[in-house]
Amino acid sequence: MNINERLIRLFEQKEGEFVSGEELSATLSCSRTAIWKHVEKLRSEGYVFEAVSRKGYRLLEKPDKLEPELIGRMLKTELLGRPVHYYEQLGSTQTLAHELAREGAPEGTLVIAERQTAGRGRMGRKWHSPKGKGLWMSMVLKPRIPLQFAPQLTLLVAVALCRAIRQVTSLPAGIKWPNDLLIGGKKISGILSESISEDEHPLYVIVGVGISANLREDDYTEELKAVATSLQIESGKPVDRMELLCRFLEELESLYALFHQQGFGPIKLLWEALSVSLNRRVRNQTANGLIEGTAIGLDDSGALTVRLDDGTETKWYSGTIEFPPLSSQ
Amino acid sequence: MNINERLIRLFEQKEGEFVSGEELSATLSCSRTAIWKHVEKLRSEGYVFEAVSRKGYRLLEKPDKLEPELIGRMLKTELLGRPVHYYEQLGSTQTLAHELAREGAPEGTLVIAERQTAGRGRMGRKWHSPKGKGLWMSMVLKPRIPLQFAPQLTLLVAVALCRAIRQVTSLPAGIKWPNDLLIGGKKISGILSESISEDEHPLYVIVGVGISANLREDDYTEELKAVATSLQIESGKPVDRMELLCRFLEELESLYALFHQQGFGPIKLLWEALSVSLNRRVRNQTANGLIEGTAIGLDDSGALTVRLDDGTETKWYSGTIEFPPLSSQ
Repeated sequence: MNINERLIRLFEQKEGEFVSGEELSATLSCSRTAIWKHVEKLRSEGYVFEAVSRKGYRLLEKPDKLEPELIGRMLKTELLGRPVHYYEQLGSTQTLAHELAREGAPEGTLVIAERQTAGRGRMGRKWHSPKGKGLWMSMVLKPRIPLQFAPQLTLLVAVALCRAIRQVTSLPAGIKWPNDLLIGGKKISGILSESISEDEHPLYVIVGVGISANLREDDYTEELKAVATSLQIESGKPVDRMELLCRFLEELESLYALFHQQGFGPIKLLWEALSVSLNRRVRNQTANGLIEGTAIGLDDSGALTVRLDDGTETKWYSGTIEFPPLSSQ
Repeated sequence: MNINERLIRLFEQKEGEFVSGEELSATLSCSRTAIWKHVEKLRSEGYVFEAVSRKGYRLLEKPDKLEPELIGRMLKTELLGRPVHYYEQLGSTQTLAHELAREGAPEGTLVIAERQTAGRGRMGRKWHSPKGKGLWMSMVLKPRIPLQFAPQLTLLVAVALCRAIRQVTSLPAGIKWPNDLLIGGKKISGILSESISEDEHPLYVIVGVGISANLREDDYTEELKAVATSLQIESGKPVDRMELLCRFLEELESLYALFHQQGFGPIKLLWEALSVSLNRRVRNQTANGLIEGTAIGLDDSGALTVRLDDGTETKWYSGTIEFPPLSSQ
């Protein structure tokens, strides 16, 4: 740990209390002039200190940035986010992660950007990624699973993200099949998995995750406001993006290991527990037209099992389900 | 049909008999000088004619080339091989097909090369593709299936190819799980499917097929000779590559349509009927070590169901199976 890191650690331990220059210089074994220089350096990185003569310094605010050095310091994972490629601005984290994977980037490589100018969502949709307000990231995974099981991985990512959001914000996030995260019926997150496979093996999967963390109401158009929300809007206060990022990667790492050890069984149980799609009327535009029924569970492959009104069961492997308005139920 | 095409058709109908210049010029309504020019043009394309005064011409040999114009004329498909990109020499048909698909090439686009300088097989292996002796091709498919079903498509391609080889050569080709084609225990063909998927949808699949059609014994190293063979070696005569190509694409098109209409059920039955892996001792290097058992069938996802010696059943989703030597059975 260098002096800046030790300085931050010390201020964090004091939890907003003043620390005298004398104590700082004694603890860190350097001159008070050196301490002043380090504090100035941290200020330039976005830390906000109050300095009062004869009392010393206290830390008022940490920068809301996701710098790789900071991530490396905070993150308790072994695989995910090792390494981090961080950008103030990028076309699309997903596109860069593909390039890195093609060039042989190791599993766990994370691309994160404060702002995307050409963020991509599912089905070629654009993804609104304004600066410093969300978590926009893509990571390289190389799952050792048959291709048949690849859709299970997307469900797993939704579980990890839902658990992380619940832990960090206490908001009642839930999963809409297959992998949208909702709060109060409105979308807060999107997940896009793109896989490159050879025969029955995925070579790598690029998992893109967008979380509307600290977007405010005026970041949304009226149209979007009806269907989308952010963690800040829902909880009334900004979320610590760094904490959310680390929690998500840690959850994902532990579920990913569980998936490789025990298969989809435990993931399926967790998904079902967090689902807002089950035991509800759902409808889906299929090749055979608009079909409506009651979602009753996931099958072992990750497909949604739906009971139709004639009592038969069907499976949906893909699609964007809707919850019909109550009047039709 | 232009004059050259009509000329070829006429000679083909005569099945090696002489046709007089007089008859040719009357049938095609052009001068005998023009006929002579057309025959010279065809000679430059590889057709071999015998010309005898007072008898006329007869066709001895057609060129063994896969020119797109010729393919377009012979092929009875609507989707596959529309269009054909033909090359005398190419690095890898697979790599070019990926580029074409990325640029929006339509489903059915076929890349074919007389020779590949960097042909690719499974698991990054090189694929030996000498000039004019095999069929080396890759095609762009855009199956409308969930990702879970993508491995079934590779099995389907093996079925189409096996049926085409049997029809054209009468050789007893069989399928070794998942998609190797064998004659007398030796490999004659390789299939490599590479898929690009978004969440639970394959966006496109590049299916690469290499058929050792007219390779001769001296085209193989001693090491390869023990495990690989060609249609020409097995049947003792060269195979008509154009006929084989057309038959394969026609079989594939009809099975591909069946797959979209009725799912994997009928394909599974065809695969099992052509399999040389079933009801045999098989072994496979798995994450849990070398496992041996008796292959008893495909499951609905395309995995191989294997009965172990303790009576339990297991499923293999991937791998390169081996048939243990008889002494261990």
